[in-house]
Amino acid sequence: MTTRITDQFWGRYRSIVKNDMLPYQWDVLNDRADINIERERNDNSIPNEKSHAIANFKIAAGRETGHHYGWVFQDSDVYKWLEAVAYTLKDDPDNKLREIADGVVDLIGEAQEEDGYLGTYFSIEAPERKFMRLSESHELYCAGHFLEAAVAYYDATGNQKVIEIARRLADCIDRHFGREQGKIQGCDGHEEIEIGLMRLYHLTKEERYLNLSRFFLYVRGEDSSFFEKQKQKDINKNPLIQGLDKFPLSYCQIHEPLLEQNTAEGHAVRLVYLCTAMADAAQASHDEKLLNACKKIWRNIVDKRMYVTGGIGSTVIGESFTFDYDLPNDTMYCETCASVGLIFFAYQMLKNEICGEYGDVLERALYNSALAGMALDGKHFFYVNPLEVKPESSQKDPGKSHVKPVRPEWLGCACCPPNLARLLASLHNYIYLQKENMVCSILFMNCESEFDMTKGKLRIRQETEYPYGGTVKFYLDQDCKEELGFAIRIPGWADQFTVKLNGQIVEPKKEKGYIYFYKCFTNDVIEMTFEMKVELWAAHPMVRADVGKAAVSRGPFIYCVESVDNGENLHLLKMDKRTEFQYDYEEETLGGIGVIRASGYRQCQKEESESLYYKMRKDIDLIETQIKLIPYYAWANRGVNEMQVWVRYN
Amino acid sequence: MTTRITDQFWGRYRSIVKNDMLPYQWDVLNDRADINIERERNDNSIPNEKSHAIANFKIAAGRETGHHYGWVFQDSDVYKWLEAVAYTLKDDPDNKLREIADGVVDLIGEAQEEDGYLGTYFSIEAPERKFMRLSESHELYCAGHFLEAAVAYYDATGNQKVIEIARRLADCIDRHFGREQGKIQGCDGHEEIEIGLMRLYHLTKEERYLNLSRFFLYVRGEDSSFFEKQKQKDINKNPLIQGLDKFPLSYCQIHEPLLEQNTAEGHAVRLVYLCTAMADAAQASHDEKLLNACKKIWRNIVDKRMYVTGGIGSTVIGESFTFDYDLPNDTMYCETCASVGLIFFAYQMLKNEICGEYGDVLERALYNSALAGMALDGKHFFYVNPLEVKPESSQKDPGKSHVKPVRPEWLGCACCPPNLARLLASLHNYIYLQKENMVCSILFMNCESEFDMTKGKLRIRQETEYPYGGTVKFYLDQDCKEELGFAIRIPGWADQFTVKLNGQIVEPKKEKGYIYFYKCFTNDVIEMTFEMKVELWAAHPMVRADVGKAAVSRGPFIYCVESVDNGENLHLLKMDKRTEFQYDYEEETLGGIGVIRASGYRQCQKEESESLYYKMRKDIDLIETQIKLIPYYAWANRGVNEMQVWVRYN
Repeated sequence: MTTRITDQFWGRYRSIVKNDMLPYQWDVLNDRADINIERERNDNSIPNEKSHAIANFKIAAGRETGHHYGWVFQDSDVYKWLEAVAYTLKDDPDNKLREIADGVVDLIGEAQEEDGYLGTYFSIEAPERKFMRLSESHELYCAGHFLEAAVAYYDATGNQKVIEIARRLADCIDRHFGREQGKIQGCDGHEEIEIGLMRLYHLTKEERYLNLSRFFLYVRGEDSSFFEKQKQKDINKNPLIQGLDKFPLSYCQIHEPLLEQNTAEGHAVRLVYLCTAMADAAQASHDEKLLNACKKIWRNIVDKRMYVTGGIGSTVIGESFTFDYDLPNDTMYCETCASVGLIFFAYQMLKNEICGEYGDVLERALYNSALAGMALDGKHFFYVNPLEVKPESSQKDPGKSHVKPVRPEWLGCACCPPNLARLLASLHNYIYLQKENMVCSILFMNCESEFDMTKGKLRIRQETEYPYGGTVKFYLDQDCKEELGFAIRIPGWADQFTVKLNGQIVEPKKEKGYIYFYKCFTNDVIEMTFEMKVELWAAHPMVRADVGKAAVSRGPFIYCVESVDNGENLHLLKMDKRTEFQYDYEEETLGGIGVIRASGYRQCQKEESESLYYKMRKDIDLIETQIKLIPYYAWANRGVNEMQVWVRYN
Repeated sequence: MTTRITDQFWGRYRSIVKNDMLPYQWDVLNDRADINIERERNDNSIPNEKSHAIANFKIAAGRETGHHYGWVFQDSDVYKWLEAVAYTLKDDPDNKLREIADGVVDLIGEAQEEDGYLGTYFSIEAPERKFMRLSESHELYCAGHFLEAAVAYYDATGNQKVIEIARRLADCIDRHFGREQGKIQGCDGHEEIEIGLMRLYHLTKEERYLNLSRFFLYVRGEDSSFFEKQKQKDINKNPLIQGLDKFPLSYCQIHEPLLEQNTAEGHAVRLVYLCTAMADAAQASHDEKLLNACKKIWRNIVDKRMYVTGGIGSTVIGESFTFDYDLPNDTMYCETCASVGLIFFAYQMLKNEICGEYGDVLERALYNSALAGMALDGKHFFYVNPLEVKPESSQKDPGKSHVKPVRPEWLGCACCPPNLARLLASLHNYIYLQKENMVCSILFMNCESEFDMTKGKLRIRQETEYPYGGTVKFYLDQDCKEELGFAIRIPGWADQFTVKLNGQIVEPKKEKGYIYFYKCFTNDVIEMTFEMKVELWAAHPMVRADVGKAAVSRGPFIYCVESVDNGENLHLLKMDKRTEFQYDYEEETLGGIGVIRASGYRQCQKEESESLYYKMRKDIDLIETQIKLIPYYAWANRGVNEMQVWVRYN
């Protein structure tokens, strides 16, 4: 499958990735960007003087001397950057970028130890602690990111060295971990190796890597005291990361054996990375039990623990899930990486089962919580994606120091910016899914694709007004004589839709959010029209934070209000059933957005008395006002500013 | 002034203090109560194995050997207990209790060092660190509590030893602290010595103690690096209390010179203790500047930073104030001690200026936030007094571990229970205030008082239905011929009131919430009738947490809903302008309370679809329901239970 994106909306982002994000991030990784690295929250233990990520590799490689700086997982910033570079090169070859990236591969190769071990912190600072404190070490987490980058880079460039390094690393891990006597029967505190090994397996078809990934999955939670035992044995009592001790076992999903975990618990990014690998391994090894475990957690997230923006993680403490329907808008976490991970998870679920809901969640997270992770300039990033921000709270309420009202240039823990870069750069992989002789569409955007089916080639060109209009045309043509399948997702937000095949209205089979065509495609045109209008959403009544409030959407976008458009004190705004909406695409606003104007009300700011509490003697004074809403992803691009997704509704 | 409380409502509490709280607390302090000591929040550094408070004194006295256990300020639990015992003995002499308390005084005397120093932690564990790390040491905090206890105990019993110990301690502090060269020019991290010294001054009239108190007040914030400098000099780098380092300078009000502090900042208990001493010293030394500083902070608290229950402190992090109008209901702190301290502050302000608002706030904090600090049995205590509790949140949201749904038997940091005991035991001191030849009433309850005025004796008997009815009769009689003054507070919640003098309606002078009588009282009866009805309150529109909500009160009581009466999910309850209220006093409910029943609505818990977000196609379904409200102080006496003060209102 190859897909070339020709879309204006996403094309702009992908060109930002190539022309701005990747060079910018390369400068940051080399400590030559003149930027201010912010701590993601008020915690002095977060390193924020510099990145030092490339320098760490140079020191490990023996090219320079000095000490490791940054988190124990600092290497992963380089790997995620390299992975993003790979997708970009595949899409749009560039000798200069290729040269830099090849150089990085060489550097990583030099930093790799003789036995295949790769990890600059432990090579430089603590070789005696390798694999000794997996709860905190992130060694396999970093290794997983390298494997992902290596597979992508090999796929894009055919660079042999990168895949050799990857195999040596995977083999090193395989020698140290497993069920066999003498091997370590445990997993990493942060899931990711499981994903990396799956990707290496898909590329190499080497069963050992699949089995090792499955081992890491199934060993999780088998012995929930594994991390504590390792810690007791570690002679060096200094933690590798301050403060992780205080989190419960569920923080890294070791509170129960994997198959018994029914709810989304602990650190949100870890959980969705775990689920991504589970769903991938379930499909690859036809493991129904694993798939059912994925489905239970999926249902729990989607039915009870996901924000309307596709954000996940309800608390900053442990960057974690909390409990069903607990979705506070102003203290949540909603880490950018968690939404990126949710997209990975949704995609892997689609590989197991064609079901519109997976695509709906993927779309929701992509167009909203994930995309909000970066500024329109591609050079400022959110770690945390709140649904309600009052800048004074972020500044003066120590419990909200993580809720930043503007995107920093870089972050002490820089996991999110390169994660977003690799997602956007690989977006062409998320538009369709090919299953044997069936292609199923996931995302709608202008693009041209070619699929190598078992029976022959299928070419699809997509022409659409998406995300601003609900018409999508697919031009399909195949070079074989046998019938092929094509499935189109009906977005969950669309109440009504029409389907035309070559200009004639048709009613194809519809199942689980998809419609299906089976035919021999010969210059066929399928035209979908989804009713795209402004919609008002309520949350389930059990969601305390949203009771008496509504969210506004149009198409894939969730909207929000900002004080720059609506004045201070957004909590005083109100809509009701008389509220009418007007939608206009504005080319000049925020790089081009669809603006929604709603007739609504504003509660008077001053009461007759200035006292803190007053007797309600009459109706609260409401003034008619126009409420201006913009897509959530575009917020915080106009300075420090209040923002709210959920608006009071009566 | 002597006052004898004959009131049923308060009499019950005072008998609980004497018969239950004090013996119970004595057992706890001696580690012979079979109880479960809970940490006040999820923080492993909080000591909770035992109290050990008396044992610490025995070790310091040389009667036993061993180590100090508990907080560095553990001694203060004993002092506050002793102070409560003193008030109880004054009101109701009891030889057995007196004997125990005399024994405690002897023990404290033995624990005191030769130079007057008193503080078991430093005597036992770290004599070399005395006064070396005042930011954390609480040495002067404990000393202040001892001085308060000593003055009260001497007043009640005439025990000479206790006042000798107090003088030696105060003199020791006087030798170490002050403006003179060689003395320490700094204050304690936790205010309290300033209050203790003022009380010792009022008893002894020794100017040195007033001056020392004023020194501690004025030195605060003069050099905001004082604590840091001390810490640098301290050879022992172990903190005395874990984690205090991370708080800003405002945590202990050293961020600005005292007179420049315009807003209530930092740790709420510290701030109101500071203000209590400031207001007392301002009155004693006719210091207008100090009084104005008090007034600025008072205005800020009362106009912008106080909960409707009289609770203060908006965040658990640093147990602190945050910013204007930031009054979250479910994450707040509202420490019991902070409301007790606010009562002290209000009382001292009344000494400076007769103004109804001071009495209103005193009443609000007393009947609501402070009283909620203990269970009806007198043996379970809240540290934190939330305005909204969902037990599942307290359990599963790590950011709400401090919001307990039921009162523990004792707390790792046990400052609140004995603080409440001393407040209740000394309540007779807060009913009236005598200013030369004027008596001003503050609280309404059945009691008999005698005042030694400059001109002669005045006897007042108060007869009232309060807190359940708005009629208060004052029977006044004096034994001198000259005109005396009597001022009566008109509660801020009363819209209308009538005044009768000897059965005739009169309209006396009214000023700042007080009405005034000047006459020669000869068997006179003043009958006040305050209109006491169910009232609905709104918060100022800037209070985000309360927008679209209402609080219910009747008389001095703020009401709340509990799920034991109203079913789970209190956030689904709603009132509107059609809501009607019915009030009934129920003898059998919760030891006798006034119950309010309101006609209201409940949003349906199940929407047609079980999905997390759904399109609003029709009005939200509301079912008519009866909402039952009880006084806030009585909540959490019927097991684990949801509670809410602010109810949705339309």
